[in-house]
Amino acid sequence: MTTIPHWKPAVLAKRAAQYELIPPEWRLPDSVLSSQPLSCVEAIRASGILSSDESAWTETTDIRDLVSAVATRRVTSLQLTTAFCKRAAIAQQLTKCLTEICFDRALNRARELDEHLVRTGEVVGPLHGIPVSIKDRFDIEGLDTTVGWVGLIDKPAKSSSEIVQLLESMGAVMYVKTNIPQSLMMADSYNHVFGQSTNAFNFNLISGGSSGGEGALVGCGGSILGIGTDIGGSIRVPSALQGLYSIFPTTGRVPWDCSFLHQHYLVPPVAGPMASSLATTEYFMERLLASSPWNLDPSAIPIPWRRELAAPPMDRKLKIGVVIDDGVVKPQPPVTRAMNETIQALRNAGHEVIEWDTSLHAPATEMWYKAILGEGGVHCRKLCEIINEPLIEGMLVGTEKDMLTLEVREKIEQEKYALSTAMLKQWLASGIDALIMPVIPWVGYKPKDWVRSKQWVGYTGMWNLLNYASVTVPVTKADRALDAVGDGNNIEWESYKTRNESDAFNYSQYDSELVHGMPICVQIVGGRFGEEKAIAAAKVVDDLVNPTPFHPLR
Amino acid sequence: MTTIPHWKPAVLAKRAAQYELIPPEWRLPDSVLSSQPLSCVEAIRASGILSSDESAWTETTDIRDLVSAVATRRVTSLQLTTAFCKRAAIAQQLTKCLTEICFDRALNRARELDEHLVRTGEVVGPLHGIPVSIKDRFDIEGLDTTVGWVGLIDKPAKSSSEIVQLLESMGAVMYVKTNIPQSLMMADSYNHVFGQSTNAFNFNLISGGSSGGEGALVGCGGSILGIGTDIGGSIRVPSALQGLYSIFPTTGRVPWDCSFLHQHYLVPPVAGPMASSLATTEYFMERLLASSPWNLDPSAIPIPWRRELAAPPMDRKLKIGVVIDDGVVKPQPPVTRAMNETIQALRNAGHEVIEWDTSLHAPATEMWYKAILGEGGVHCRKLCEIINEPLIEGMLVGTEKDMLTLEVREKIEQEKYALSTAMLKQWLASGIDALIMPVIPWVGYKPKDWVRSKQWVGYTGMWNLLNYASVTVPVTKADRALDAVGDGNNIEWESYKTRNESDAFNYSQYDSELVHGMPICVQIVGGRFGEEKAIAAAKVVDDLVNPTPFHPLR
Repeated sequence: MTTIPHWKPAVLAKRAAQYELIPPEWRLPDSVLSSQPLSCVEAIRASGILSSDESAWTETTDIRDLVSAVATRRVTSLQLTTAFCKRAAIAQQLTKCLTEICFDRALNRARELDEHLVRTGEVVGPLHGIPVSIKDRFDIEGLDTTVGWVGLIDKPAKSSSEIVQLLESMGAVMYVKTNIPQSLMMADSYNHVFGQSTNAFNFNLISGGSSGGEGALVGCGGSILGIGTDIGGSIRVPSALQGLYSIFPTTGRVPWDCSFLHQHYLVPPVAGPMASSLATTEYFMERLLASSPWNLDPSAIPIPWRRELAAPPMDRKLKIGVVIDDGVVKPQPPVTRAMNETIQALRNAGHEVIEWDTSLHAPATEMWYKAILGEGGVHCRKLCEIINEPLIEGMLVGTEKDMLTLEVREKIEQEKYALSTAMLKQWLASGIDALIMPVIPWVGYKPKDWVRSKQWVGYTGMWNLLNYASVTVPVTKADRALDAVGDGNNIEWESYKTRNESDAFNYSQYDSELVHGMPICVQIVGGRFGEEKAIAAAKVVDDLVNPTPFHPLR
Repeated sequence: MTTIPHWKPAVLAKRAAQYELIPPEWRLPDSVLSSQPLSCVEAIRASGILSSDESAWTETTDIRDLVSAVATRRVTSLQLTTAFCKRAAIAQQLTKCLTEICFDRALNRARELDEHLVRTGEVVGPLHGIPVSIKDRFDIEGLDTTVGWVGLIDKPAKSSSEIVQLLESMGAVMYVKTNIPQSLMMADSYNHVFGQSTNAFNFNLISGGSSGGEGALVGCGGSILGIGTDIGGSIRVPSALQGLYSIFPTTGRVPWDCSFLHQHYLVPPVAGPMASSLATTEYFMERLLASSPWNLDPSAIPIPWRRELAAPPMDRKLKIGVVIDDGVVKPQPPVTRAMNETIQALRNAGHEVIEWDTSLHAPATEMWYKAILGEGGVHCRKLCEIINEPLIEGMLVGTEKDMLTLEVREKIEQEKYALSTAMLKQWLASGIDALIMPVIPWVGYKPKDWVRSKQWVGYTGMWNLLNYASVTVPVTKADRALDAVGDGNNIEWESYKTRNESDAFNYSQYDSELVHGMPICVQIVGGRFGEEKAIAAAKVVDDLVNPTPFHPLR
């Protein structure tokens, strides 16, 4: 006989309340839920809950098409919002991608925006009437921000986060918040409150983390634009797993008070957009920065979107650095193939591609670990203690022995400065426009596998430490024919001797059958305040490798 | 019988070596030194050491005149450098404004630059051949950076600070480093190594701090451009005391690794220019930022000098907020008069002047104190321990009881964020272009008086906490006729009841005879990243109140 944990009733009540927020006509029958198709996109299409117009709107990838449709009154915000609410509701039932749901409030807001447009002939801003989803790391006034902690249930936010205020002032409609891992420190989004989020394209696989719910939701077409956060890869990993375009910016470009709090000084977390087209991410950045976020957030940096830097140069080819393998954890075959195909496409188009020296990557990553673990898990412990909720094991959360004294922090700060200087020198000396590398060395893990071994976050975390902006771009899909191992296929992988525990774990997890069809992204690093440069290189790559739009809604 | 401290021999050797670096023909006779004229500028003129050309060059206020003279080969860098070395040498003998002296090296560098110009017909950069002085807080390769600590004597720097590298790459000639207080945490520059720095215009008064030596040197005409640093007023206070123009910028605009180290997170120190004209400070900023300092300093912010913001608006008058008295320490009569005259001049010219609500100033200043003292004096203790040098009493240095735990720091960080948000709202709601207020509530203190009472740094320190850029502008001079108290003059001051210990101290120190003729500056605050806005307002003020250039070299 198992005992029911004392905090379970609070969870069950929260989940029941969440389910009640989905109108009965948008609920999937048990028959679908029990024999779920592999891809949630198929289930959404098969459900018949969306009209063909609603399907088309929600499968649009360029947000400017929706913005223009609403602004010119070809579609109302109410229609659009209804469509996205429906799709998000179905996605939630299949992938557990949501936390807070506020469809009623969204539909009311949409009606008001429609009335405003009819009455004045004017839009309130560049996102007039467009539903935008946001990770459950930000506050929306009146809704919980549990961040997946049981102890934070039923503590509605008194005001909205700056980014939410800005989105709303731009005309956006907030309708859902999205699922995350407990503590935010893993690449697999599950917690005791909202359960396990799964991948939009394969329910056997994870959606990533910590912005995993956001990744699954956008992947399902349940959102055209989602806002995630990233302290070690949390925007980029779910984007990679769901084939999304995303921007991981340098601190201060996207307003977020949390970026500036003391405990995060060595590695500041940042917020950024996740979407199914590059155009959507750029539109968000450009319009957000045109709204002067530095007039709302006292720590935002007043640099507008530099459109001239975001355009590929007309008069010359690019010079691109590449990392295929960082020398610590070898990427699985589909990731290596994605890199090789991207490099080949760049070379074929006349761009210069050079190998990047990764010798600073391991020390940077080690510093990232120290910094992240260095608060000794105090914050998580306090959050657990509210209701004596257990901490999920295997997350990247420090313990007492990891706690850094102020003196050691200062020392690391100096080491970080020296390392940043060395990296800046390497970057400038190389003359590259951008650096292209894997986001993660894997394609898909099953739920709860990520925590089983110490995971290497070197492909993403070091850029958080250095505060270098980067962008994800989907470039291909895993393919059981191309990526299988054996029979002379991928001989290098077959004979590979692993280098360390993380590498061995990653090696052992590879299964070309399991991950068949999963999207693969590359990461394009643009440097500190290099959002525009990364976008410029991303446009070149995207045009080369995705001559027709890479549509995650296959 | 007094005992000679055990660290005294090291100091005497350092001072003797320093004196040896001044060529005999530039040394002042004992007769001058023993009956020193009040103003060191008079002594320099009377010394006969400078030719009339050398006097004219060193009394130039706009650096562009010297830049152009060297670039067009009307003057050589060797001539200019010789002139400034002479003048700095005399200033040092009168005010103890220097620490490290490297005249030989400077003259060699000047010769090389002259040869380069003759050979190539090109300048190496926008400061080609111009001597620039720098506070002894930065490293120049091969010279000590004692920062006034006995224990740091004879530890030459292995490389130059980024700002020095940038200045040299722009063509500047480094020739001296300037005096500071022990620990940098007082507005009076003296330390056991280099002694007491005094004011350029009155040897009975202090030069301020912590960039006090720099203030005295620039005040004497011994430098056309000096680089100071500021964590609570250290650029602005010496500028105010010597009638200088200066820019205290937001973190990241002027490169300095120290701005980004952990212990300074709550209140980051910044570097900035001090000069005898606004044009010189702007020229420095514009050209420094045009040299892409973010390619050298991995923490610099890539915002170029925004010339359009630095020009007063052509189509409208300014709206200016003013603080005459912050409600904590009442400014002495000459400061109040300086403010009133500035306000009147602005109003007469049609600008709108509104009173600024100072209710956030005291809480911001209290937070500044907590943050500054919060490292518990650990750094100073370690520096003292190297050679068992005593700590000077009365400085703003924490003790064990001030030490903040990480938890409390995080709490203060959150409070700071809330306060910053409130201030930003107030600023935007007011619609002001800039805020004008005193730099300090006093005009001149005698050496070692500053440490005798807990000093209020509320006029400057809160802007460090908030990271708001500001500019100093000299507007008048103390006048024994206008500023005397009694006989119906300054009745308000005469009958004033002091509010607190700091206020009482400041009140007690006022002596209109003592400070007669001393320059008075106002501070023009431009907001976060508001350097250009502050400069624009400063240009308006400077044109109104200084129809002929305010020349500190009276």
